[in-house]
Amino acid sequence: MSNMTTKTIEDLVKQGQAARAAARQVARLSTLVKNSVLLGLADFLESEPGPVLVANEEDYAAAKSDGLDEAMLDRLLLDQDRLKAVAGDLRKVAELPDPVGESLEMNTLPNGLIAGRRRVPIGVVASIYESRPNVTIDIFGLCLKSGNACILRGGSETIRSNSALVEVIRRALVDADVTQDAVQFVDNPDRNLVDALLKMNDYVDLVIPRGGAGLVKFVAENATMAAVTGGIGVCHTYVDRLADLDKAMNVVHNAKVRRPSICNALDTLLVHSAVAAKGLPRIAEKLTVSGVELHCDRRALSILGPAAAGKVVPAQEDDWGKEFLSLTAAVKVVDSLDDALQHIETYGSGHSEAVITEDYSVAMRFLDEVDAAAVYVNASTQFTDGAQFGLGAEVGISTQKFHARGPMGLRELTSYKWVIMGNGHVRP
Amino acid sequence: MSNMTTKTIEDLVKQGQAARAAARQVARLSTLVKNSVLLGLADFLESEPGPVLVANEEDYAAAKSDGLDEAMLDRLLLDQDRLKAVAGDLRKVAELPDPVGESLEMNTLPNGLIAGRRRVPIGVVASIYESRPNVTIDIFGLCLKSGNACILRGGSETIRSNSALVEVIRRALVDADVTQDAVQFVDNPDRNLVDALLKMNDYVDLVIPRGGAGLVKFVAENATMAAVTGGIGVCHTYVDRLADLDKAMNVVHNAKVRRPSICNALDTLLVHSAVAAKGLPRIAEKLTVSGVELHCDRRALSILGPAAAGKVVPAQEDDWGKEFLSLTAAVKVVDSLDDALQHIETYGSGHSEAVITEDYSVAMRFLDEVDAAAVYVNASTQFTDGAQFGLGAEVGISTQKFHARGPMGLRELTSYKWVIMGNGHVRP
Repeated sequence: MSNMTTKTIEDLVKQGQAARAAARQVARLSTLVKNSVLLGLADFLESEPGPVLVANEEDYAAAKSDGLDEAMLDRLLLDQDRLKAVAGDLRKVAELPDPVGESLEMNTLPNGLIAGRRRVPIGVVASIYESRPNVTIDIFGLCLKSGNACILRGGSETIRSNSALVEVIRRALVDADVTQDAVQFVDNPDRNLVDALLKMNDYVDLVIPRGGAGLVKFVAENATMAAVTGGIGVCHTYVDRLADLDKAMNVVHNAKVRRPSICNALDTLLVHSAVAAKGLPRIAEKLTVSGVELHCDRRALSILGPAAAGKVVPAQEDDWGKEFLSLTAAVKVVDSLDDALQHIETYGSGHSEAVITEDYSVAMRFLDEVDAAAVYVNASTQFTDGAQFGLGAEVGISTQKFHARGPMGLRELTSYKWVIMGNGHVRP
Repeated sequence: MSNMTTKTIEDLVKQGQAARAAARQVARLSTLVKNSVLLGLADFLESEPGPVLVANEEDYAAAKSDGLDEAMLDRLLLDQDRLKAVAGDLRKVAELPDPVGESLEMNTLPNGLIAGRRRVPIGVVASIYESRPNVTIDIFGLCLKSGNACILRGGSETIRSNSALVEVIRRALVDADVTQDAVQFVDNPDRNLVDALLKMNDYVDLVIPRGGAGLVKFVAENATMAAVTGGIGVCHTYVDRLADLDKAMNVVHNAKVRRPSICNALDTLLVHSAVAAKGLPRIAEKLTVSGVELHCDRRALSILGPAAAGKVVPAQEDDWGKEFLSLTAAVKVVDSLDDALQHIETYGSGHSEAVITEDYSVAMRFLDEVDAAAVYVNASTQFTDGAQFGLGAEVGISTQKFHARGPMGLRELTSYKWVIMGNGHVRP
């Protein structure tokens, strides 16, 4: 079954069946065996990078001649340093505790039955992703460690790199006596195969899109199996009336500038009117010096206008609720915590939201009332990340409320079953 | 907004919006206030049952003249004893710990950030259910205690009873100063409104169907929001080569006969060939004496044939994987644990499966390898139930792997958010 190619939808169905069958074996692999696959794979990526680098050069050359821009080209590039980093991540996953088999609780009931929940893998996880070929290794590593088989469908522009990476994965599986069917790779860029994959709920238990808003939306709307929606962050930071302005300046700057292109980056700055005149110019200066363009509402504009011309422009209606993913931020002056909460409820995407305040009750209300995956007091929203939160790694960030919310690590790739041990027990 | 009637889809959308707005208040009610609603409602149901009983008499008379059968008529009937039982269940829910606000973990990270997960309600839960009017009170009680607003759509044959019950709920809400919008009742049996409700993912976070397989399937296939699928149990009990036959006899009898019409009742009995000749006649006699009809494969038939004619008939192909919900069971002789596991994988619905054995390794393999919400050793599958498992109550039984599996209690009606408290923290 291994080394299957995906010429037709029938081939894809066979891959789904092979993944389903493999999932049974993968679910019961010991932690030692799973770790030996991960560590073996890490070693191969470092010691024999040749075939992967050659394939990646071909992808790169083709993408360049297709006219992809520099940012895209950089994203698909692999070199020895990047492979070393990928290998390092695999070794970290190997070190993480194995979630499979953990008892979530196990009690003796009044009638003597021993009953509780045991953590089990989900089964078959499919991922549809774009450009970065390292995702191939990341998703495989997290799926294997959590006892799941996976079906991978990367971007067409990295199909040679991904094929070569999957070959290395297969070698590592064989070396550890694990079925090569634990990984299935869709080696055909035909979009019809994506549509077919999303209908294969008999063979796929969960689909994880990794990419832009368009991909996530498409998967959410068309998947017949469970899908992780998320990764789209319209993130606000609200500088309260009683904010410490030094903290505000540093946190806001970090939330926007550290990495502007990621989903937890600040999009809209809300500033209480009582501190706007004093605080906004300081915050704005620090941002504009770093190259941030501020799209300001009327009141923010009237405060900032003369001081920082050029980088300060009037906001348009569609600036509110926009995920900028660049050195741009919307700025609005509000008159109260309630106004800030209302704005966040209207325009937020339920990802990461922060308040800067020294007011205890404002902090508590913000944590309580903002309905988002991650709510912050006096800290940068850029912390929303599986590694930062102690999950060790993440397959994505969920903004849904079902199953998992926020960064999804190994634990979030599992389900549970009820285990009940009796001695001839009958129910009265 | 309260006391809205559902004449049109526009009315239903308004109810959805009202529920969404109410959910914000309900999410932050203290446990004391929620309990006072539940206890007040319980008192009203016992002390002033008049209007509900009158409405129920009208439903009953109409259903009778429509020619509903006795079982259906009995299901929709309310009397003072049944209302007392419903009130008792509400008081039990009031006594259960409040899941909302629980910290799932809260740690100080190496950088000093305090971060962890806090349990929060899901938001708006809709339930679509059939016949039994007590479900109106059950679902409302569980949703309120877990901090969710709810939208209820009961069966058309109990619409008067449900309307009267919702009136009592509203009185209890008013008495505790809670918005009446916390409960929305679809008082129009038009099926188009169900279709519309399933498209209202802007206002409904989760839909729970309670009823037959047709309803569950329809909701699963048409809901645009998360749906709990389950409640359909094709349950096997496998009597192993090393089973204690007394335990087997009692457990199998209980699993089938105690209540044959519920989803965790035994459907198929699998017996190892090494014990079939000795054990199957004893088990079969106990079952047939209780009125169970056995649909047997060729080998089981050849063992039982002469002894228990009339109640022992040849199995048809569609008996395997059938949920009988009656005093009928399929019986098959298998040659090994592996054959039993294969049969269960092929025909089971992932609900409740049991093995009867004294063989330690068989027991461990069965628990490990059967992929179902509840897996049993030497106990009746009829234990699969929220109250039996210590959840206190249940809104349904999930056979999906996402979010919740098996009985869903208060905890399973919640999500979580990440809460992060800093002191000006920025990410390096």
